[in-house]
Amino acid sequence: MTRPRPGGGDRPDSPDDGDNRGSGGRDCGGDAEAILQAARAAVGPALRAAVGSLPEAMRRVALHHFGWRDAHPPGGGGTGQGHTGKAIRPALVLAATRALGGHAPGAARAAAAVELTHNFTLLHDDVMDRDTTRRHRPTAWTVFGTTDAILAGDALQALAQRLLAEDPHPASARAAARLAACVVELCEGQQADTALEGRRPQEVTLDECLAMAEAKTGALLGCACAVGALYAGAGDEEVAALDAFGREAGLAFQLIDDVIGIWGDPRRTGKPAGADLTARKKSLPVVAALAAGTPAAAELAALYATPPGAGDLERTVDALERAGGRDWAQVQAADRMARALHHLSAAVPRPPDAGELLALAEYVTRRTV
Amino acid sequence: MTRPRPGGGDRPDSPDDGDNRGSGGRDCGGDAEAILQAARAAVGPALRAAVGSLPEAMRRVALHHFGWRDAHPPGGGGTGQGHTGKAIRPALVLAATRALGGHAPGAARAAAAVELTHNFTLLHDDVMDRDTTRRHRPTAWTVFGTTDAILAGDALQALAQRLLAEDPHPASARAAARLAACVVELCEGQQADTALEGRRPQEVTLDECLAMAEAKTGALLGCACAVGALYAGAGDEEVAALDAFGREAGLAFQLIDDVIGIWGDPRRTGKPAGADLTARKKSLPVVAALAAGTPAAAELAALYATPPGAGDLERTVDALERAGGRDWAQVQAADRMARALHHLSAAVPRPPDAGELLALAEYVTRRTV
Repeated sequence: MTRPRPGGGDRPDSPDDGDNRGSGGRDCGGDAEAILQAARAAVGPALRAAVGSLPEAMRRVALHHFGWRDAHPPGGGGTGQGHTGKAIRPALVLAATRALGGHAPGAARAAAAVELTHNFTLLHDDVMDRDTTRRHRPTAWTVFGTTDAILAGDALQALAQRLLAEDPHPASARAAARLAACVVELCEGQQADTALEGRRPQEVTLDECLAMAEAKTGALLGCACAVGALYAGAGDEEVAALDAFGREAGLAFQLIDDVIGIWGDPRRTGKPAGADLTARKKSLPVVAALAAGTPAAAELAALYATPPGAGDLERTVDALERAGGRDWAQVQAADRMARALHHLSAAVPRPPDAGELLALAEYVTRRTV
Repeated sequence: MTRPRPGGGDRPDSPDDGDNRGSGGRDCGGDAEAILQAARAAVGPALRAAVGSLPEAMRRVALHHFGWRDAHPPGGGGTGQGHTGKAIRPALVLAATRALGGHAPGAARAAAAVELTHNFTLLHDDVMDRDTTRRHRPTAWTVFGTTDAILAGDALQALAQRLLAEDPHPASARAAARLAACVVELCEGQQADTALEGRRPQEVTLDECLAMAEAKTGALLGCACAVGALYAGAGDEEVAALDAFGREAGLAFQLIDDVIGIWGDPRRTGKPAGADLTARKKSLPVVAALAAGTPAAAELAALYATPPGAGDLERTVDALERAGGRDWAQVQAADRMARALHHLSAAVPRPPDAGELLALAEYVTRRTV
């Protein structure tokens, strides 16, 4: 089995955990960085205006969450600069609109609505998962309490729908319906994720985990692309193909994200190394490895059956790798990316038109597959 | 100071805690019961279809919350019949549409959206407030856990917006924007409510409490009326007047609800007698009484400054009444109802047209003022 490759474990600036480091120029990262920066510039005004319209008690939570300023209360932490999220989803909306010949600036509000929706789910997921760190800062609920974090999330979902409801673009209602349906799917994914955590690893199937990852991560990337297509006036088939593109790219991202969460550099991920393994999380590589039926899989199962102890993280990583978890995830991610590109070429046959979407899909998986 | 009047403390079947007992015919209750029953029949199909579209994990939470069937897990309790909520808000939507000359059946989806929004906030409020009983049943989070209750609430908000986004009615986008803005206000009200609970009673002003009650209770009743007006094609002034009517009626309702929570029959309220007092809640009558500056107010303040002990509930109720909390609430409620009727007559000058809205407003405050 492969060992971690030099540089291969760097976590991409994930959609959830961005970091404006401006180190572009690697692979297609340079293009993608520029696309993301342009998307942030295009969406920023609508996003900030929406958050700025919140009553103070929720605005301060949202400002902290977005990294736009320090939290008011003592212990708020953070610099107020930098770790604000990469805006992958808004960039996908705008790129999809452009790819299908639409006027991207007209989709800026819709792109902001998708980003607000994403951040509403992050606020709530952190409460449910009791996660304490996001974007290198303490999560909102640890600073403001669960009540204020839940309410800020509720308000962000409402703001997202309000942006679309007030958008005179002819596609806004269809986009709003699609985004609302996506929220239900995101909730389903989060529910499945937490339910899976309560079960024994041997009782969890890979199909269940893949379905969960598609709902939790793929659905909103797919929705972002579909919304962009709607704003270009695309037909049902193109919209469906772009949704499928985003979903598959999202699954590829999740697989790579899981790999990087185990083998990546914690200075880049913003999380302790192997945190998911220490928490005995049933990530995709782990569930695939447990199903391998090899001695290494049995070793991994035995480790997962006991509470994490000092020094067993290395043994767990080693057993996981020998049981094929890493290889499986990388092959799966490559397969998902191939499927994504198939859907993309169906909806956007001319390669130059598909360039931005391709760059973004490759960026989130950063050619580590 | 007045003593509790015989029968005067019966809690109306509140918008939040309904009970289909079919005992109409008292005061204008007969009309209102029929209006509510018709509203439930009109909105039921859209509401059930929306909930039925949810993935199983969230559907079972919603079905339990709405009282449409027993919870799956052991300990779910409830009869699956009866306590499903009165549908005051949908009835207000439909009545407002009719009052302004619109076609009420065309507003059924919008009315269902308002009801879904209301229930989303109830699910989340119960999590935040750790309330264990609603509609005579265990709250959803006590049966399914906080994660599933939060997610079901998130999904109901999304379903509400999806209903409006998919509604071809020309007013649906404006209604969606208004409902989304109302959600932010509801969140603000809930945030203020929980924040007030953490402060000393003497530090809480009556104005703060009234503003909180308007945001938490008045806003959605106002929005329901405004949405109904929009679906009738009403102009901005009529929409604003109907919003104000609903807000003032909502405040009157909250005042009466607080009174009944203290002096009402627990068999009707579904909550232990004086639960708010025992929990030292800063309800409107309490905050008004504390501000009275009388010996009874000082007595009440002293009781509120100590943890509730055996037998002190009666003393608290007595001090509250002698400090004028009940009288104040009843006078305020009457004043709010007068303001509500003023706004109603501005938007709907012909009394026959305003009859349903009037009956509903009187129903929620049940002439106890």
